[in-house]
Amino acid sequence: MTRAVLSRGSARERVLEAAIGLFAEFGVDGTSLQMIANRLGVKKASVYYQFHSKEDIIDAVIRPVIEDIARLVTIAEAIPSVEARRDVTVSGMVELAVRNRRLSAVFCGDRAVEAHLRSDSAFVENADKMDALMNGPNPDLTTRVATSFLASGLFWTAADPKYSEVPDTELRRALLDTAQGFLRHFP
Amino acid sequence: MTRAVLSRGSARERVLEAAIGLFAEFGVDGTSLQMIANRLGVKKASVYYQFHSKEDIIDAVIRPVIEDIARLVTIAEAIPSVEARRDVTVSGMVELAVRNRRLSAVFCGDRAVEAHLRSDSAFVENADKMDALMNGPNPDLTTRVATSFLASGLFWTAADPKYSEVPDTELRRALLDTAQGFLRHFP
Repeated sequence: MTRAVLSRGSARERVLEAAIGLFAEFGVDGTSLQMIANRLGVKKASVYYQFHSKEDIIDAVIRPVIEDIARLVTIAEAIPSVEARRDVTVSGMVELAVRNRRLSAVFCGDRAVEAHLRSDSAFVENADKMDALMNGPNPDLTTRVATSFLASGLFWTAADPKYSEVPDTELRRALLDTAQGFLRHFP
Repeated sequence: MTRAVLSRGSARERVLEAAIGLFAEFGVDGTSLQMIANRLGVKKASVYYQFHSKEDIIDAVIRPVIEDIARLVTIAEAIPSVEARRDVTVSGMVELAVRNRRLSAVFCGDRAVEAHLRSDSAFVENADKMDALMNGPNPDLTTRVATSFLASGLFWTAADPKYSEVPDTELRRALLDTAQGFLRHFP
């Protein structure tokens, strides 16, 4: 029987993997727990046993990314010089963007996910801290705009399907060169 | 009666304006012709008289932007030097990004709109040409990544609600400084 599918990896991971695949294909709003169950060839109750709602699934997928961002912020905030902080923040952002690029492609611009993120205080706080690390003290408009430009440039380029066939190491190298070039002209 | 609302601006423009407002609030998928009619205080038939589907509305909203891009491409392609082409392309992109920032905030990341754009050959062709203008001849991965970084950095920053209160002229100045700084380190 198809229920055997759940035996590869933990049941929880299999559900998350199937959910991300369906989100990519049909959007978060267009995906139901029933569709996840169908894709795994299990009963809806088996999915429900792991996650009670799509919100729970989104949360489980996003949680490790938020924890990664929090770790990066802690590391960067410990560095005294503004320039060295920016260097560390940028290489950390490139790493995050490339490692989570499939997820960004699925989630960025999705209204359901964005609402979820905006309501997550840990995410909002760490995103603000990452901005502050790039901005430095008393940023003017051009500095704030440069920070936004860098962050959207990195995350959207990493998520661009145009580069989906490029291996992580190569994409990371190209993004790092690009971002470090940009930093040399940071306001 | 509320039908009087349709008298400000042309009926067509009023419908587009109401549609964009609803798209921003409920997403394209979450907006119906009936909702547009309700917002304008008119019968659905009055909306239907202007546009037969949401596809028609999306098309009417996007068409002028595609024409702007086509004009920019024509101007830039006429310039012989690669560097000067990039300069013109960048200032043109900044102008486009700021002028259409409300629209980008509504449409970017929306699956329905993205599918619409991918199926529009004029859009795809001009987007490719704009990439080629930035890339120059025989671009390597780093150059292509830098082009993507620039484009997503510009359009997403312009669309960021964080800057919605900043006047167009100021935002344009800040984005132009940022993009021109980046160009100085273009691969």
